[in-house]
Amino acid sequence: MNKLINEPANVVSDALRGMAEAHPELRVDHENRIVYRAGAPVRGKVGLISGGGSGHEPLHAGFVGPGMLDAACAGEIFTSPVPDQMAAATTAVDGGAGVLHIVKNYTGDVMNFEMAAELAAAEASVEVVAVVTDDDVAVQDSLYTAGRRGVGVTVLVEKIAGAAAEQGRSLAEVADVARKVNANGRSMGVALTSCTVPAAGKPTFDLPDGQMEVGIGIHGEPGRRRVPIAPAAEVADLLLGPILADLDFTGGDGVIAFVNGMGATPQIELYVMFHEVAAILAKAGITVARTLVGSYITSLDMAGCSVTLLKADDDLLRLWDAPVRTPALRW
Amino acid sequence: MNKLINEPANVVSDALRGMAEAHPELRVDHENRIVYRAGAPVRGKVGLISGGGSGHEPLHAGFVGPGMLDAACAGEIFTSPVPDQMAAATTAVDGGAGVLHIVKNYTGDVMNFEMAAELAAAEASVEVVAVVTDDDVAVQDSLYTAGRRGVGVTVLVEKIAGAAAEQGRSLAEVADVARKVNANGRSMGVALTSCTVPAAGKPTFDLPDGQMEVGIGIHGEPGRRRVPIAPAAEVADLLLGPILADLDFTGGDGVIAFVNGMGATPQIELYVMFHEVAAILAKAGITVARTLVGSYITSLDMAGCSVTLLKADDDLLRLWDAPVRTPALRW
Repeated sequence: MNKLINEPANVVSDALRGMAEAHPELRVDHENRIVYRAGAPVRGKVGLISGGGSGHEPLHAGFVGPGMLDAACAGEIFTSPVPDQMAAATTAVDGGAGVLHIVKNYTGDVMNFEMAAELAAAEASVEVVAVVTDDDVAVQDSLYTAGRRGVGVTVLVEKIAGAAAEQGRSLAEVADVARKVNANGRSMGVALTSCTVPAAGKPTFDLPDGQMEVGIGIHGEPGRRRVPIAPAAEVADLLLGPILADLDFTGGDGVIAFVNGMGATPQIELYVMFHEVAAILAKAGITVARTLVGSYITSLDMAGCSVTLLKADDDLLRLWDAPVRTPALRW
Repeated sequence: MNKLINEPANVVSDALRGMAEAHPELRVDHENRIVYRAGAPVRGKVGLISGGGSGHEPLHAGFVGPGMLDAACAGEIFTSPVPDQMAAATTAVDGGAGVLHIVKNYTGDVMNFEMAAELAAAEASVEVVAVVTDDDVAVQDSLYTAGRRGVGVTVLVEKIAGAAAEQGRSLAEVADVARKVNANGRSMGVALTSCTVPAAGKPTFDLPDGQMEVGIGIHGEPGRRRVPIAPAAEVADLLLGPILADLDFTGGDGVIAFVNGMGATPQIELYVMFHEVAAILAKAGITVARTLVGSYITSLDMAGCSVTLLKADDDLLRLWDAPVRTPALRW
């Protein structure tokens, strides 16, 4: 196993300790595995929480800070956090305006966040609204998921809803913004290699050399089909075809185009992919209003990428442009 | 070859086109493969240029922008840019205060930057000072290099000298800052896999599964020795041992501690490594003043990491903290 880790069982704890040491501006509750924005709760501001299995870094803890999340709950690798943990985070970030849960659509996450919301309501009278992301057009139902999987759009929801909360919008309004981003976002990914879960010690799935899995999930769940590795231009076509068939991205104020690395794909390849994505969008008459190119929602050491498009309006673009100060997104 | 590329011969051109499309705030001269800060030259400001072989992204073009570089010259993969290209960039960013060349210590780069400086002086009377980085403690002389190799400290030189130039310091002063960073910085890296140069289509070196190369260079040059893959705590020891033996990092205003990913190592592992690095520094009585954890100087799709320490004083820390707005570093 070619990994820079200690005991496989301690990867999440070790990484959270490193994160706390590297980012003293965050507050980390190591017992509960919760990463908090300094100064949380912010009085009068809607609190934003996300979380999920670890192994997708920088998602979610790398997006904690002003303009984005108030807290992130880390589960074990590819395993949902537990309700008590999420309830503790929910109560801790409630500044009196309620709390938004941003939940990727995986059965365990959805169920545990629901239980956490009930706990926080019962024990501390926190008002909670949950928004579930399900932007992956690759498959309907999947390993771990009923319905579509939540993937790349989650990063955009956290940024844009985070900005809306920072502006002082109400819980209902922030939740509306989050739902709008999810409703107008679509993603699809491709894997050129499997990932390896540290505790398993061997690749999650077999992918013969020279083959790629089109429509891969972020936990190595099967995609649509397995085909020979193709040039970047063809890969971009394979990913954008289903995305553009699923929603009309023309018109409006353009799209936020996000090319994401899966963990083991270097930045030079992501720029090659972005060039091909931009060419397809230009041909389709879709305006690129904003861009994001980097590894923001990963799948451990999987090689590959995903493409996310978000059809934006003026409000979403202004929220996207608003200042953000987190470990992984800053402007 | 598990890469998201088109023709191997076009990787650099394709990536530069993607970069230009993803970052409309930059100006890219595709013919000469030069990435410019918008508005360059900045009148009265020392111009900063770096460049080198491609394959180390985001270094260097990802560091072009206010507070860091005025231009970056991209060579072919792992191949120095040519003198004419560097001379064109030098002349274009001269705002009347001269130009600093930041050069990693590889024979081809050093020679070509020297020729470029002579060309720019002869043809456009540009005053040029070059600072060569040579922070890699792993080996003395190497494939491509007489003396020590320039690696991680180059990122810190570009940030800190960039801030000094932004403040309006003179060419001699900015060069002094760059030299001070290099003199007080030390690095060492480890590879858990080889990289693969696209045009070659096969791994640059053979590294049996379960082995790692300690002291690796950023082009796959041999390191000090090959040992079985070890826990992160031991890897941190193997990297920090030679660094701490080479320079006394105690005292002063603490260190900037930089854990860098080699391209195919995900962020979660870098945080695990940072935790081990922080533990060793604490034990050695070395104060961590600032941190940087991410993939900033890579070696294509190599798995592994490097550690860089910079012994800082108050001036260097203030320059480090100064605002920067580039694709890969922003605060």
